[in-house]
Amino acid sequence: MLVMGIDPGLSRCGYGVVRHQGRANQAVAAGTIRTDRADPVPQRLFELHGELVELIGHHRPDVVAIEQVLFQVNVRTAMAVGQASGVAMAAAAGSGAEVFEYTPTQIKKSVAGWGAADKPQMGKMVQALLRLPQPLKPVDAADAMAVALCHLAHAPARARIEAAR
Amino acid sequence: MLVMGIDPGLSRCGYGVVRHQGRANQAVAAGTIRTDRADPVPQRLFELHGELVELIGHHRPDVVAIEQVLFQVNVRTAMAVGQASGVAMAAAAGSGAEVFEYTPTQIKKSVAGWGAADKPQMGKMVQALLRLPQPLKPVDAADAMAVALCHLAHAPARARIEAAR
Repeated sequence: MLVMGIDPGLSRCGYGVVRHQGRANQAVAAGTIRTDRADPVPQRLFELHGELVELIGHHRPDVVAIEQVLFQVNVRTAMAVGQASGVAMAAAAGSGAEVFEYTPTQIKKSVAGWGAADKPQMGKMVQALLRLPQPLKPVDAADAMAVALCHLAHAPARARIEAAR
Repeated sequence: MLVMGIDPGLSRCGYGVVRHQGRANQAVAAGTIRTDRADPVPQRLFELHGELVELIGHHRPDVVAIEQVLFQVNVRTAMAVGQASGVAMAAAAGSGAEVFEYTPTQIKKSVAGWGAADKPQMGKMVQALLRLPQPLKPVDAADAMAVALCHLAHAPARARIEAAR
């Protein structure tokens, strides 16, 4: 199974692709899509959508896992992240992949073991789980990889629940 | 000049197209794009994006004016509207149209003359400004038409400001 994690954002949108085979998780690709703060927001959303459609079309993940937007202190940032996540969801659903959302707490719990893990802890856990020689950079790519790993941690239970239905 | 107004929403997204020629504003098309609440949100955002791309490609407006999302009482609704507006902006920018956002207060002020106008007042003003035999229905279509009329009301001042630069 191939899973793409997305950490949505308008200025920086992280992505990370993980292949799950047997019991191993292998990092396939990771990076950040950036848009220029100097450009109008609609143009930036259009570019983000186009880059995500291309990226998802290239990797063809079975699942796209997206970090759920929660309302933050900064209302303007929250709205931009909401708009970016809308564009990411449309791009993912259009590829035919299954799309799942996970909250920041779910992601931290399943990757680092507790819901209040900080960025350096998360980075080290992502590095360890994927057996990488060094921490993934930039941090948005590591965050996105954590979303993909969160889906892989939830997938067996999800499959059992669906089988039981 | 052809202007498309959009009242973004995930369950119901209104649109209205107005042609401005000389001093007259003429209604060209209006309606509502609906997505099924029973479907997953990513699928609904994908459908909304596809329908808007098609609609904008069909009418080829010079300008797309979008009602700006403000944070409402209901956080879940605000997020869905934010995601829908992100998808609408991406679709509009991708068509090459200029994209503008207007707040609900700007729209009410320029169409009904004051910022606290209610729905029936707005509906009657839209009907009067476009010389329609009856009020536009559904209400999302009338709301979207009001966004387009708001842009047309602001356009001359905007052009003067740009010319002065």
